[in-house]
Amino acid sequence: LVSVLSSAIIVYRLPWTWKCSKLLMKFIHAGLNTIAMILAIVSMVAVFEYHNARNIPNMYSLHSWIGLTAVIFYSLQLFLGFAVFLLPFAPVPLRAALLPIHVYSGLTIFATVIATALMGITEKLIFSLKSPAYSASPPEATFVNCLGLLLVIFGALILWMASRPHWKRPPEENAKVLRPIGETPEGTEAESTMTDGTNADKSDMRINSEAARKQNLKLDEAGQRSTM
Amino acid sequence: LVSVLSSAIIVYRLPWTWKCSKLLMKFIHAGLNTIAMILAIVSMVAVFEYHNARNIPNMYSLHSWIGLTAVIFYSLQLFLGFAVFLLPFAPVPLRAALLPIHVYSGLTIFATVIATALMGITEKLIFSLKSPAYSASPPEATFVNCLGLLLVIFGALILWMASRPHWKRPPEENAKVLRPIGETPEGTEAESTMTDGTNADKSDMRINSEAARKQNLKLDEAGQRSTM
Repeated sequence: LVSVLSSAIIVYRLPWTWKCSKLLMKFIHAGLNTIAMILAIVSMVAVFEYHNARNIPNMYSLHSWIGLTAVIFYSLQLFLGFAVFLLPFAPVPLRAALLPIHVYSGLTIFATVIATALMGITEKLIFSLKSPAYSASPPEATFVNCLGLLLVIFGALILWMASRPHWKRPPEENAKVLRPIGETPEGTEAESTMTDGTNADKSDMRINSEAARKQNLKLDEAGQRSTM
Repeated sequence: LVSVLSSAIIVYRLPWTWKCSKLLMKFIHAGLNTIAMILAIVSMVAVFEYHNARNIPNMYSLHSWIGLTAVIFYSLQLFLGFAVFLLPFAPVPLRAALLPIHVYSGLTIFATVIATALMGITEKLIFSLKSPAYSASPPEATFVNCLGLLLVIFGALILWMASRPHWKRPPEENAKVLRPIGETPEGTEAESTMTDGTNADKSDMRINSEAARKQNLKLDEAGQRSTM
């Protein structure tokens, strides 16, 4: 689940020499998140069935509370992301306004999922290790502790990759060159959501090549700003 | 501890109508983090003494492993922050290069501390609630679960505040107006660390007022970029 979530987060940071279209990237992002959502639902059903079969109460622990909260917010995130960013109906200003929130809540949900996993690991180690107990540090305990620590390192790396402005997908330069100025093909609308509404400044800045160079810098930075 | 850490993080996001100098802000940030470090050390000593008095092994749990890792990184962060950003010896390019790393690692340590607290709460509830057990959801369990959930919400709010570009401290406009161009008072060096090394472009961009306006935009965005 965590690995699928991570792949969905960093799909926009893949090496862009791969020259994959932005729309395809969006579909991969949405698809990976849908797979992660299905995995989350399957694992929740498994937990409830396991609890019921063993007469363990459901939803009593902090792990379950925060985990359920994360899943609820994740389904909201998935639904809103689908409605606003994947379907072609949402206007550009709405997309531009929601993108920073979408990115923030995606990364926050990811961090919360890792925290939930760490609490789940702690619970499982305490409940499962009886003789020798968890506090006696049997090899299983040390091994699973290492896995937990690796999970934190992994999560920190993903958040680093996702928050680096210069690892962001560059604006589609070749698409811009091929397109005459003024034309607005299907791709532009999606593209402009990444520039955080700075299109309004476009006209007065396209006065000479120096200004255009600065505009590119500005678009770059506006796009980077929308990362987080 | 978490509240002092949070205060240290959001001190740069306070309403700037308060017109507090940047250097004072840095001292408050460093001071609050030093207090948080002292609290962390005191609480760790308390835990070790409690464990030793009760013959509970030390450092066996995932909570303790991740907690100790966070404290080690936090002391590194504090030491590097003091040496690079507070002492006047570090050159501007070094400050500019380290600032995004400083911000990222500060926020990551903060999130890790919250995850550690959640694991600690889980452990404490399992070990302390015996009759009725944690799984029977006694009022204490529900109450502490609510506290844990509030801790997650609180952490998410702090990360939201810290990652909003438009809540960033604006460049010191009045200081710029009062200062003749070319003069480099004590404040400039510290100020330029926030602009992420774009000073190199300054000379060729100061050609006319239009370019100056763009430069301001650019500096704004570069500053915002360095937020995360």
